[in-house]
Amino acid sequence: MHKSITSTQNPYIKQLIQLKDKSRERKKTGQFLLEGKRELSLAIKGGYTIETLLFFPDLFSESEAKAMRHYNVEIIEISKEVFQKLAHRGTTEGVIAVGKTKEHTLEGLKLSSKNPLILVAEAPEKPGNVGALLRTADAAKVDSVIIANPKSDIYNPNIIRSSVGCVFTTEIGVASTEEVIAFLQKYSFNIYAAILQESQPYHEQDYTLPTAIVVGTEATGLTQEWREAATQNISIPMQGVIDSMNVSVAAGILIFEAKRQRDFK
Amino acid sequence: MHKSITSTQNPYIKQLIQLKDKSRERKKTGQFLLEGKRELSLAIKGGYTIETLLFFPDLFSESEAKAMRHYNVEIIEISKEVFQKLAHRGTTEGVIAVGKTKEHTLEGLKLSSKNPLILVAEAPEKPGNVGALLRTADAAKVDSVIIANPKSDIYNPNIIRSSVGCVFTTEIGVASTEEVIAFLQKYSFNIYAAILQESQPYHEQDYTLPTAIVVGTEATGLTQEWREAATQNISIPMQGVIDSMNVSVAAGILIFEAKRQRDFK
Repeated sequence: MHKSITSTQNPYIKQLIQLKDKSRERKKTGQFLLEGKRELSLAIKGGYTIETLLFFPDLFSESEAKAMRHYNVEIIEISKEVFQKLAHRGTTEGVIAVGKTKEHTLEGLKLSSKNPLILVAEAPEKPGNVGALLRTADAAKVDSVIIANPKSDIYNPNIIRSSVGCVFTTEIGVASTEEVIAFLQKYSFNIYAAILQESQPYHEQDYTLPTAIVVGTEATGLTQEWREAATQNISIPMQGVIDSMNVSVAAGILIFEAKRQRDFK
Repeated sequence: MHKSITSTQNPYIKQLIQLKDKSRERKKTGQFLLEGKRELSLAIKGGYTIETLLFFPDLFSESEAKAMRHYNVEIIEISKEVFQKLAHRGTTEGVIAVGKTKEHTLEGLKLSSKNPLILVAEAPEKPGNVGALLRTADAAKVDSVIIANPKSDIYNPNIIRSSVGCVFTTEIGVASTEEVIAFLQKYSFNIYAAILQESQPYHEQDYTLPTAIVVGTEATGLTQEWREAATQNISIPMQGVIDSMNVSVAAGILIFEAKRQRDFK
């Protein structure tokens, strides 16, 4: 048998809502909330510990829920009201889970190739942008995505959603810009910073050595520290009437040029 | 002297709200609403006829408004209430304008280069995606963007906003998929359709001849007609755990590979 919760006033449910809404609560407890089948399966694939699974039986079968016991997961049946209270988006999959957050230290990063390719994003403003960057990084199978000077934690429900779950399978580092630069220099990365000033066209550079491609915000670009640390400032030639590009589109163009040069290996 | 409108119940203002909200109204009247200084200046640059300019004097100076008379524009002063009613987004620029829509026939397209590069998007779902595609197309200065089987008209306020106004300066064609294919074939374009099946990696193709790059929706991809019409199906190697890419990121990668091959000329 498993537990069942039908009241949205249940203290545990109230605590989970906090977990969904508050970065502080996630930091304090080392837990986060995720939602949806794909997200759940990617979190497991990404080696996350799932502590609790909450399912609404009209939408998610009890047998599917019970299968999660193999992973030592507590199973709780919830009512429609509780599900709707916990669900962040209009999903109809009936499944919510509580996972344990991971550390995202730079020294803990597992870079799988000898000649790593890393995407660094400094202070991305919107969760949707972080999600789009993670999707691009997943498609390109970069070795890691590093978030410098983050504006929010990576377990923000909007980041999970907009990454369509690949936030769980990407090797992610989070640190201050200063720490990221020190890390990249320690391991002799070539740093290509997307900065207009004193830049070279991106497609004339060689990305076949250990490479970090660094992008800033659409509004203010990268901080001064990157100008000093960069092996080379790079820019995408802009030939139209407007002067900025969507950050995830720009990152996609840069990362895939690097992949092209590496023959997608 | 110029007219002044202070009531949100004014029949003309009510008509303008219809123009903002209803595609049907824009089609019927051949007019659209735009908002913001940059958008206004790009619409003028793009050769649009501005019929009326409405300004809220606390935010937009009367002298700036009067300068528009050179363009034979009717000037109307509006109250804060009227401005807020007409404004689509949280702008604080105090300026709204009524423009005349253009025809977007394929035969009317002015392709500026001898060896044109065209981006075709079939039935893009979200106005935000259309806007992002237009920004990318602007940056790359493609000869034209063609929307096949559109879901909304291009004067949708969310398209104007997400394109940051370059909807006005891009050479845009709108037609059915059948018409677009007939047009591309008539003018001997190589058609590279982003379709996974029977595809070649995008970076192994030659985009230096007259080229149309065709992208579909994230959910369902391109229709069958493109499979038959394509010179070559192309795909971006996906090496991660998820199987789809944001359509504007994918279009950016493809278009800029074409630009790279053309030395950004």
